[in-house]
Amino acid sequence: MLARFSLTAFVFLVESLAYASETSHSDPIAPILLGLIILFTGAKAGGFVANKVGQPVVLGELLAGVVLGNLTLFGFEGLQFLRDMDFFASVASLGAILLLFEVGLESSVGELLKVGVAATIVAIVGVIFPFILGYGVSCYFLPQSTHYVHSFLGATLCATSVGITARVLKDLNKIHTKEAKIILGAAVIDDVLGLIILAVVSGIIVSASKGSGDGFSMLGVLMISTKAIGFLIVALFAGIKFAPMLFKIGARLRVEGVLVTLSLSFCFLLAYLANLAGLAPIVGAFAAGLIIDGDKYAKFFGEDEMSIEHLIFPLSKFFVPVFFIHMGMQVELATLSDLNVVGLGLALTLVAILGKQVCGLGVFGKENSAVSRLTIGIGMIPRGEVGLIFAAIGAGLLLDGERIITPPLYSAIIIMVMITTLLTPPALKWALQKKPVKFPL
Amino acid sequence: MLARFSLTAFVFLVESLAYASETSHSDPIAPILLGLIILFTGAKAGGFVANKVGQPVVLGELLAGVVLGNLTLFGFEGLQFLRDMDFFASVASLGAILLLFEVGLESSVGELLKVGVAATIVAIVGVIFPFILGYGVSCYFLPQSTHYVHSFLGATLCATSVGITARVLKDLNKIHTKEAKIILGAAVIDDVLGLIILAVVSGIIVSASKGSGDGFSMLGVLMISTKAIGFLIVALFAGIKFAPMLFKIGARLRVEGVLVTLSLSFCFLLAYLANLAGLAPIVGAFAAGLIIDGDKYAKFFGEDEMSIEHLIFPLSKFFVPVFFIHMGMQVELATLSDLNVVGLGLALTLVAILGKQVCGLGVFGKENSAVSRLTIGIGMIPRGEVGLIFAAIGAGLLLDGERIITPPLYSAIIIMVMITTLLTPPALKWALQKKPVKFPL
Repeated sequence: MLARFSLTAFVFLVESLAYASETSHSDPIAPILLGLIILFTGAKAGGFVANKVGQPVVLGELLAGVVLGNLTLFGFEGLQFLRDMDFFASVASLGAILLLFEVGLESSVGELLKVGVAATIVAIVGVIFPFILGYGVSCYFLPQSTHYVHSFLGATLCATSVGITARVLKDLNKIHTKEAKIILGAAVIDDVLGLIILAVVSGIIVSASKGSGDGFSMLGVLMISTKAIGFLIVALFAGIKFAPMLFKIGARLRVEGVLVTLSLSFCFLLAYLANLAGLAPIVGAFAAGLIIDGDKYAKFFGEDEMSIEHLIFPLSKFFVPVFFIHMGMQVELATLSDLNVVGLGLALTLVAILGKQVCGLGVFGKENSAVSRLTIGIGMIPRGEVGLIFAAIGAGLLLDGERIITPPLYSAIIIMVMITTLLTPPALKWALQKKPVKFPL
Repeated sequence: MLARFSLTAFVFLVESLAYASETSHSDPIAPILLGLIILFTGAKAGGFVANKVGQPVVLGELLAGVVLGNLTLFGFEGLQFLRDMDFFASVASLGAILLLFEVGLESSVGELLKVGVAATIVAIVGVIFPFILGYGVSCYFLPQSTHYVHSFLGATLCATSVGITARVLKDLNKIHTKEAKIILGAAVIDDVLGLIILAVVSGIIVSASKGSGDGFSMLGVLMISTKAIGFLIVALFAGIKFAPMLFKIGARLRVEGVLVTLSLSFCFLLAYLANLAGLAPIVGAFAAGLIIDGDKYAKFFGEDEMSIEHLIFPLSKFFVPVFFIHMGMQVELATLSDLNVVGLGLALTLVAILGKQVCGLGVFGKENSAVSRLTIGIGMIPRGEVGLIFAAIGAGLLLDGERIITPPLYSAIIIMVMITTLLTPPALKWALQKKPVKFPL
């Protein structure tokens, strides 16, 4: 009853506010206020319904986004501003950054290094298999296309989008498990590998389109890799050494709110530098979280100071749901009307899932015998916004005047991203409740 | 030493990051991350220095904004994006809204009604005198101008920008004093009066420019006033009745983070509705804060839930300093090079200050004998962004093909806004430390 009431009330609210906003001329902050109210309400309504049916809250937020983003199918255009205004995209990006920062705060560099070998193998396996399988699917469905297209589709399947998995693990209170550490570590390495693959594949295509070798060089790829790996190593080592000093200086400023501002600045700085090094900003934010010891640093500011985790909590409740709703809004149900596209999309989805299931097998050794390989495989499934970024780059690449990623191919990739994103929360929840299968390795 | 070191380090950080951002092509979130780091660091550095010399933190934030906004005078253009990107303006507006929400949370409708009579008189006196004085200054400095210009300049001096005063009272822990309640109540009424005056003056000018009476009607002004006053009455009464119900329903959702999201949504909703009613969004946010009982509502969510004040704290530390730095950045020191403009600007400033000093005299009666009239007079001084909005509207009005507010007039208004804004924090601090002068009224 409550669910039904809240849904009706929500739709009424959205419609009447959207109507009111059209009929007035006003402060430029007005549409932003309206948008935030709709996003917050949608997130909580979705989370409530997901909770009711025993699903992770994040699935509810994603589906609320799908609903809000596809009201145009019913002729309601009043919410287009949520998609068009840069502000909401920026808040969503900050949400992803804060989420990974929060997740990083719950772990440390040392803990992550302990699973370093396992995570590296998982990451490498999780890049090779999806690439090969994606290449194969492309050959089968698009026999007339060049091997450049096949390579690019394969590359699109490589990267893991760790946001969804991190959120589910956090919601289900499993972020401290060994599986969580391996998945998170592998996701960071994945981002480095994805970057390198993207550079290689795009480089080869650009070079082929110019008919010369100057678009791609081994040296270029080497530089890209060095920059990315160098950033991670320098950030982690310098961070662990200098971050406590930075927070001690901050405490000496004796200005209210320094702790929360400094934590955020540190997180944003590493996210910014990661981006300069060619990595995703969320990788930097995660590194910042790993480096910071939330309880210890808070003590520099006096015994009564709230821990950094407590201070970040309300900020994350503001920004993070916007990220997931916004991600849900990118799902265009209209793409499902073309059966050819759907066929390719489903095939890509299948190999995207299967390709990552091999990952779990990369975890071996006696100390890992209790680790659930299924959980790791499922945790690596979502492609989320990383897949979309790859697809968008491919859509911008031309070879002999034709796009590498044509609109139908782009739609197929969207379907793959959609399904892997929406499937992971329930699948991961199910896997976490199962007993791990022991492999004789 | 620390102050000097932090300044040098800050300038170095800003320069090298701004350089780095120019040389890379990257995620669209990158400039936002960079901007937030600069704004946060600037706010804390400014706050630290202000603290050191015994001034309110907000003055340091404003001056940090002045510095960051005027680096162009030294040929450094790298921070223009802070002024140009809509994102920062939006965050600044949300900062003002959250600040007034926070201030409202520390009071209640009942407490404010107790000072209702005093606040109303203060507001009315504080509108009449600045208007007359502003009109006079305009007659003296611009004898060749029409009385439309004089009226508009007078109107620009009416509105109080309560953000600065609220922040100083909060920083100095004086938000619970009777003076604070009178100032805050008067500021809300001021906003209603300012709205009516703006409607009347603009209406008369538009009507004069059309050479007919159809741009202005008594009925129109009556409608504008009714809408604004009606909103306040309905919002406060309906809010007090229905808000507890809303939060009880929210608590039944049992989704993490509902309390903070619901509080924000309620605040944003009233800010949005205030804007629809023609008032400033911050008036709605303040009303939302008055309605919500932060401790009591948190209890609906269980005994261990943090109070709403605690949950809003980190959000306010994120958004509010951006508002003040952004306000400081609007100060263009270059306007100070034209002596005629400076002369008019200083004269306007003088009457802006004197006009509001009469306010304090509006507080009489035995129950108010201990109230510091000086504090109230000074608390009403800042014109801030409200003055700027008035000036911008004036710049858009044409009469016989000429602008009502010409660029030099606009600069003079900016100078008045600048000085009243920067002067209030130290003056208010000084007044709060003095013993009140008892008037024989």
